[in-house]
Amino acid sequence: VKQVDLLGRLRDLVGGDALLTTADDKSPFLVDHRHLFHGAALAVVQPASTDEVSRLLALCNGVGIGVVPQGGNTGYCGGATPDASGRQIVLSLRRMDRIRSVDAANFSLVAEAGCTLAAVQAAADDAQRLFPLSLGSEGSCQIGGNLATNAGGTAVLRYGMMRDLALGIEVVLADGSVISALSPLRKDNTGYDFKGLMIGSEGTLGIITAACLKLFPQPRSVATAWISVPDPAAAIAVLGRLRDASADRVASCELVPQSALDLVLAQMPGARSPGTTPAPWYLLIELTSSGNDDLDPLLESALAGAIEAGDALDAAIARSGEQRDDFWRLRESIPESQRRAGGSLKHDISVAVAAVPALIERGARLAADLVPEGFLVAYGHAGDGNLHFNVNQRPGTDPVTFRSREPALQRAIHDLVATMGGSFSAEHGIGQLKVGELERYAQPAELAAMRAIKQALDPNGILNPGKVLRGSAL
Amino acid sequence: VKQVDLLGRLRDLVGGDALLTTADDKSPFLVDHRHLFHGAALAVVQPASTDEVSRLLALCNGVGIGVVPQGGNTGYCGGATPDASGRQIVLSLRRMDRIRSVDAANFSLVAEAGCTLAAVQAAADDAQRLFPLSLGSEGSCQIGGNLATNAGGTAVLRYGMMRDLALGIEVVLADGSVISALSPLRKDNTGYDFKGLMIGSEGTLGIITAACLKLFPQPRSVATAWISVPDPAAAIAVLGRLRDASADRVASCELVPQSALDLVLAQMPGARSPGTTPAPWYLLIELTSSGNDDLDPLLESALAGAIEAGDALDAAIARSGEQRDDFWRLRESIPESQRRAGGSLKHDISVAVAAVPALIERGARLAADLVPEGFLVAYGHAGDGNLHFNVNQRPGTDPVTFRSREPALQRAIHDLVATMGGSFSAEHGIGQLKVGELERYAQPAELAAMRAIKQALDPNGILNPGKVLRGSAL
Repeated sequence: VKQVDLLGRLRDLVGGDALLTTADDKSPFLVDHRHLFHGAALAVVQPASTDEVSRLLALCNGVGIGVVPQGGNTGYCGGATPDASGRQIVLSLRRMDRIRSVDAANFSLVAEAGCTLAAVQAAADDAQRLFPLSLGSEGSCQIGGNLATNAGGTAVLRYGMMRDLALGIEVVLADGSVISALSPLRKDNTGYDFKGLMIGSEGTLGIITAACLKLFPQPRSVATAWISVPDPAAAIAVLGRLRDASADRVASCELVPQSALDLVLAQMPGARSPGTTPAPWYLLIELTSSGNDDLDPLLESALAGAIEAGDALDAAIARSGEQRDDFWRLRESIPESQRRAGGSLKHDISVAVAAVPALIERGARLAADLVPEGFLVAYGHAGDGNLHFNVNQRPGTDPVTFRSREPALQRAIHDLVATMGGSFSAEHGIGQLKVGELERYAQPAELAAMRAIKQALDPNGILNPGKVLRGSAL
Repeated sequence: VKQVDLLGRLRDLVGGDALLTTADDKSPFLVDHRHLFHGAALAVVQPASTDEVSRLLALCNGVGIGVVPQGGNTGYCGGATPDASGRQIVLSLRRMDRIRSVDAANFSLVAEAGCTLAAVQAAADDAQRLFPLSLGSEGSCQIGGNLATNAGGTAVLRYGMMRDLALGIEVVLADGSVISALSPLRKDNTGYDFKGLMIGSEGTLGIITAACLKLFPQPRSVATAWISVPDPAAAIAVLGRLRDASADRVASCELVPQSALDLVLAQMPGARSPGTTPAPWYLLIELTSSGNDDLDPLLESALAGAIEAGDALDAAIARSGEQRDDFWRLRESIPESQRRAGGSLKHDISVAVAAVPALIERGARLAADLVPEGFLVAYGHAGDGNLHFNVNQRPGTDPVTFRSREPALQRAIHDLVATMGGSFSAEHGIGQLKVGELERYAQPAELAAMRAIKQALDPNGILNPGKVLRGSAL
């Protein structure tokens, strides 16, 4: 098929306004939000319905054109950026942004892929329900991308990841066929777990166009503490104590090093110090309950015990919604502060929760040895065993030398994680960034099985080619 | 390969004691526990290690011999019974019954497939942890079978199904290759959800040999009530009230009709009436907390409100562990009572929770019309939208006529469920019993995708042939 014919057929399919072909129009879709991945594309198409997505894929499958699905374009691994060939098309889901239905009685709603996470949260809130997925980018990331990458965030400890939060999905396969399962069923054992397979497959096995999402009772009581701790082992001990004392009502447990707090206070105008004793590490812990429990006294008494035991040095409990927001803003601002402060080398790793202190200790030694120009900013979802193990450039050092340390550091950190039985990509996925790492660390049988599944469901290799698994060029 | 050679090679592989070839030795493995499915087998092999399973599958894959994995043989759909050809082998996992490790700090344990569910529960209990999966057959069903069928049970409302309870698995693929992922990781986004795909695939995509299972804090407080309700709609209203009042600490919510209670009291010696006002329907509800909450007053006050609102007629709160056990025994004895009382036509169906009353109303009308010889015994996991929608034979009616009603009733009930967006197999899976139903009710694209995945992972079709999907005979 000639390029001009293909563009004509795409235009017939979605309408002229939904087909972007000029360099200016296409450019925002061709680079990721961190400006690390740059691609080219024949066109950007913006279908408005599942039927249009279906016909688009049937067309591209027939002529062998690669299709790169894109949501809010907030990913960390280049999963939504096309390759440099200019022969692929970007399929943006942004026009599919309807909340199709909200069912408060069944604690569920059906959202199209292009809804922002914030719009889904708001729709749940309007029905006096909670959709718990919570990410720094929730204002712009889209639920389709959250599903495609099995997104995590700060409420995983209590509510699970995106795969746990979807009751059903609607998905378009490579040949344009549609599987629609959007009932709010809690139990269904009729065949293979197709939903789980599609979620987290980063658009390489199908394009998710809508999902039935699980809602929860809204929290009526919230208690939030910023806690100074002497070291990561003490932090994990404090978490254990709070889980125990609160009958497992810990919703979030984020670990923050002094280095990260310093960055935020230096880089973010208006950031307020939490006011606790300066310490090498901090924990941001939040308890929630959908009942009218008074959680503050419970938190106070457990923290008093932790201080007495030497696991905590000091703690501040948020006395207002504003103070709670301040605590959370400190945590959520870490990535942006890192960016403003200069270069950083990033790792998104996980181990068993109890192994987090050992991971930090051993990883910190590697970072100090391998990157003399850097300092460690290891923070994140300690309650899930997941750290963003980042190294930032020291002011005044040479950026080129600093950046040159990346391959050796990454190899050392990922090897360490592998020896500890951990994951080199806990929540950010593979995209194009980590295809080589997956090849290195996945078991050969697992990699072979993934390739067999990809070949079975997308024999022409048109779906997000080269992402997750190395593919033949399209 | 000649049959005699194959048996010799199997014997070399597992040892003579682990290879059963006489009719007497094989017979317990060739029929399901309800005696509905009968098969034949060349041999029953009982490997003692993952390595032996691996070499067995490599051998059978090479010579094209079908392998039927079997755990505790307690399934409802004939998934573990070989076909009648006598050319398949049964692979019993019963000798792989070690708890490999328990990690209380990480709330996890690693169990081999042949461990009974009760043994896994006990190992968790020894470590002051809870493994929440709970089934009537827990003393004999095996965790490998629970994984293969994505088992449900009475604690799904709070803790999820088996797929939600596995942090990782060890699985042997058709060609004998082994994928082992047994770390207690809470987050890992490195490629496709292989674990979720294997769980619930009923041994047709791989044989699970071990799993890392999720543990929870033990409940310290439990409150259990047997509640008389006027109708299913009132039952769902009571559940909503209790979820709300207890900050979502409802762990189980089972619906029991008067017909089921009558059967249990008539058939089970020693069964004690719950002592509440006789009513058309009952709810068995249990609240649990890992804290020291006093749940009884909370339950009492919520039930008083339900009685005042007319949603509950009467309720008894268990005042001792013994009374709690009595309540649960009434519920757990329903299947056995049904069996003792005569023939029954069974359906394992689910809809959205709020649609349960409509399902019962419409289904009851169909049952009355289509099976004049029967009476309805619809009970089960109402809190998950899952009912065992069974019709028992009336005493004195003709068993042949009664049995002849099955196809028409099943069609009507499953069609009803389909129109309501529900599932014709909520927790029991497909096995051989429901292969035709899956073909009828699955979307064509979904069925095609399942077949493509099966073909990709088991190209010779040796894994549990003919289960879930119709296969070529092996």
